[in-house]
Amino acid sequence: MAKGVTLKSEDYSRWYTDVITKAEMADYGPVKGTMVIRPYGFSIWESIKDAFDKKFKETGHVNAYFPLFIPKSFLSKEADHIEGFAKECAVVTHSRLKSDPKKGGVVVDPESKLDEEIIVRPTSETIIWSMYKKWINSYRDLPILINQWANVVRWEMRTRLFLRTSEFLWQEGHTAHATEEEAREETLTILSIYKSISEDILAIPVITGIKSEAERFAGAVETYCIEAMMGDKKALQAGTSHYLGQNFAKAFDVKFQTENNNEELVYATSWGVSTRLIGALIMVHGDDKGLRLPPKIAPVQVVIIPIIKNEESLLNIKSYLSDFLLELKKYQIRFELDDRKKISPGFKFNEWEMKGVPIRVEVGSRDMDNNSLVCVRRDTSEKEIYTLDSSASNVLKLLQEIQDNMFNQALEFRNRNTFYAHDYNEFKSFIDKGGFIQCFWDGDNKSEAMIKKETKATIRCILETKDLKNKNCIYSEKPARYEVIFAKSY
Amino acid sequence: MAKGVTLKSEDYSRWYTDVITKAEMADYGPVKGTMVIRPYGFSIWESIKDAFDKKFKETGHVNAYFPLFIPKSFLSKEADHIEGFAKECAVVTHSRLKSDPKKGGVVVDPESKLDEEIIVRPTSETIIWSMYKKWINSYRDLPILINQWANVVRWEMRTRLFLRTSEFLWQEGHTAHATEEEAREETLTILSIYKSISEDILAIPVITGIKSEAERFAGAVETYCIEAMMGDKKALQAGTSHYLGQNFAKAFDVKFQTENNNEELVYATSWGVSTRLIGALIMVHGDDKGLRLPPKIAPVQVVIIPIIKNEESLLNIKSYLSDFLLELKKYQIRFELDDRKKISPGFKFNEWEMKGVPIRVEVGSRDMDNNSLVCVRRDTSEKEIYTLDSSASNVLKLLQEIQDNMFNQALEFRNRNTFYAHDYNEFKSFIDKGGFIQCFWDGDNKSEAMIKKETKATIRCILETKDLKNKNCIYSEKPARYEVIFAKSY
Repeated sequence: MAKGVTLKSEDYSRWYTDVITKAEMADYGPVKGTMVIRPYGFSIWESIKDAFDKKFKETGHVNAYFPLFIPKSFLSKEADHIEGFAKECAVVTHSRLKSDPKKGGVVVDPESKLDEEIIVRPTSETIIWSMYKKWINSYRDLPILINQWANVVRWEMRTRLFLRTSEFLWQEGHTAHATEEEAREETLTILSIYKSISEDILAIPVITGIKSEAERFAGAVETYCIEAMMGDKKALQAGTSHYLGQNFAKAFDVKFQTENNNEELVYATSWGVSTRLIGALIMVHGDDKGLRLPPKIAPVQVVIIPIIKNEESLLNIKSYLSDFLLELKKYQIRFELDDRKKISPGFKFNEWEMKGVPIRVEVGSRDMDNNSLVCVRRDTSEKEIYTLDSSASNVLKLLQEIQDNMFNQALEFRNRNTFYAHDYNEFKSFIDKGGFIQCFWDGDNKSEAMIKKETKATIRCILETKDLKNKNCIYSEKPARYEVIFAKSY
Repeated sequence: MAKGVTLKSEDYSRWYTDVITKAEMADYGPVKGTMVIRPYGFSIWESIKDAFDKKFKETGHVNAYFPLFIPKSFLSKEADHIEGFAKECAVVTHSRLKSDPKKGGVVVDPESKLDEEIIVRPTSETIIWSMYKKWINSYRDLPILINQWANVVRWEMRTRLFLRTSEFLWQEGHTAHATEEEAREETLTILSIYKSISEDILAIPVITGIKSEAERFAGAVETYCIEAMMGDKKALQAGTSHYLGQNFAKAFDVKFQTENNNEELVYATSWGVSTRLIGALIMVHGDDKGLRLPPKIAPVQVVIIPIIKNEESLLNIKSYLSDFLLELKKYQIRFELDDRKKISPGFKFNEWEMKGVPIRVEVGSRDMDNNSLVCVRRDTSEKEIYTLDSSASNVLKLLQEIQDNMFNQALEFRNRNTFYAHDYNEFKSFIDKGGFIQCFWDGDNKSEAMIKKETKATIRCILETKDLKNKNCIYSEKPARYEVIFAKSY
């Protein structure tokens, strides 16, 4: 663990994998493309989950659980949906193994072949709407505001830990409404929750907007998204909220009786964030020493490292720290006292820096003589020295400062790397440098496709823009319909 | 919803399904044997999960996540394990669908056939120990105390909601230790957590003990269990904690360097409880009016039903209740004010009784005149009348009383239906009546198998018994080796 990681500037992709491995966040599983989330990575996911779950519940949502297994026929019910999801997926065809009399071990029992193949859910719209058909009869049954925390599977060829694996964890909300207006409002409520957790908790600034048709969720009328800039200036789609109109209600024939005794199709939304957010955390905040975690999400916010000479000095240090530790507890600060023996303080410093702990407290005999504590910030490497009795309250303040600073650092980085392109040549030179390019677009799939082909950049989102007068498309030079962000992306 | 359920005494099994359906706890999914856990059922699962998770963390465990997909070959690595788990399971053989040019819809793309088939995890010992092999080198890496909350799949022919479904939710702990002693201690620590949550939170009295070899987990050296008596006097295995010895370390070649520089195989435990516990809750506590939930686990502990004549009276009632509601909040009591219109109080009473809410508060104009509130207990149907300003603190006390009473009712029921059989004739007559039979056994697989064949009763667990002198096996009449509990079971 003591060894460092590949430098970010040298090989960003290796740096990313190194950080994950050395910080013991995740590992590849034995089946190609699957991921093991190790305890340290998982505790970050638990914090993320708690933050979202609380907001979902505050806004009237409830959790439920729908089956992993979807009948194959369901995937073909919604015309667009099938294009997006039926292609690469895990197909269950048999239900039994039997001993192999020839070679030993087990083989699939051919007699257990299923009548209809089963798909491991890539997303749950179809199975959920098949149930909503049973549950929804009247306007009194609406709205349904259900979320589920679950694993999903998409057979991926090129995988990368947290960003793209065959199986990943996520939450997927699936709501049903009596009116278009209410459903559209729900889509935006969720988008604003996504934005606020990303920014306030994960310290990741995000741009919100609508996806172009080409990038839209398969089956949606409108896809809203939050997009973040990673440390290599590429974009990452960090969450999406879809207004699905009546598409799934049509596919599964879900109608309700209105207050006026009419029959109408139900309106729907769906929305999700995933373990991808952990990838974003690493890429937005990490540096050459490893992970940097925003205090609000860090499983350990403060690590205390005693500079020990012997058993006795450890006892002295612990007694010196006792009030301080009580106060940290009182403030509900998550701390760890690392009193492992036979491991040098220097080794511990590196290890906890790798793990991204926001504040390191060092304490040795000199600090005790001075009645003080040394605090080192992970975000800036700055040292602060506090008197012992003011330390806990200062640590509390410092945590907030670090949280704010990390957000600001990320925001400044994004601003520094966002460019306004006025013509296609400028666009191409910006793309070569990397970053977000803000520009105008004629709204034509063809211009978008040509830009993608020529530069690999895609429209990350359509911005809300009031004035398009005299603006022209960066590619076709025809009058603009939208202002958009282009970027290369994960 | 207003309609009642089948009487317990009439048809226990229909009563069980009726309660689940009417209380909107769960539903069958479209793929045979799969289950949808609806929001009300899922919120109970969330409470159960929180209670266990807290205890696991307090005892030093951490959560992680391992992949859903296991290579087929892994299942044959541990000789006993394969017998238990490789038989009925979901097998993934392909990774792609394609459009069906003939009939429309989609078909499995034969070109996507996998080189090695993949099993959807029925339990995760094998995949986890394949990772532990990578993570464990030295005694410094031990113990590993990992738990995961996950879905697992076992292809079941005869399914019953919550008790036996193809997919279910559970937690599975998988720990690795340097010594047998430590691993055995871990097994018992977990057993005691299982017992205390079952009894203190779920109000379900359980018997703890060891499983006979025939009932042991496939791959374990020793299986400890908690067994509970359901309302039809059958037994339900509610949780198991396994000491696995070095079986999985052997199978996956997981050795560590000891402090003395020797190499040794790692010792293991695994343990789990599942959504089955919700089935137990229903069957232990439910009655002919529906569910009865112990206050500590109830998503809604108190429901307040205003007896409304018109809009104005609702406003009056709300203002009358305002201090009471604030106090409930202060006591962190989970309450709901059911102010739905156009639904009669009687209908609401039935609905919330069906959902098992521990206390119903009724309030109408007469109560306001008397400056009082009426509280109705779900466990006994008794009414209590409190003065308004003493109501909240009385409700708090009443919740504890209900919790205790529900445990005692279940315990008395179990005691009333536990019999001591002295000979096999007595044994058989008890089995016909139903219940637990405590008796002696020679420890021979054959006696156990014969008893099962003749009576359908199995050994639920082996009790800790000090004195076996002059005790003989209920079946063979040979000297007894164990005192055991026999019962028919789910």
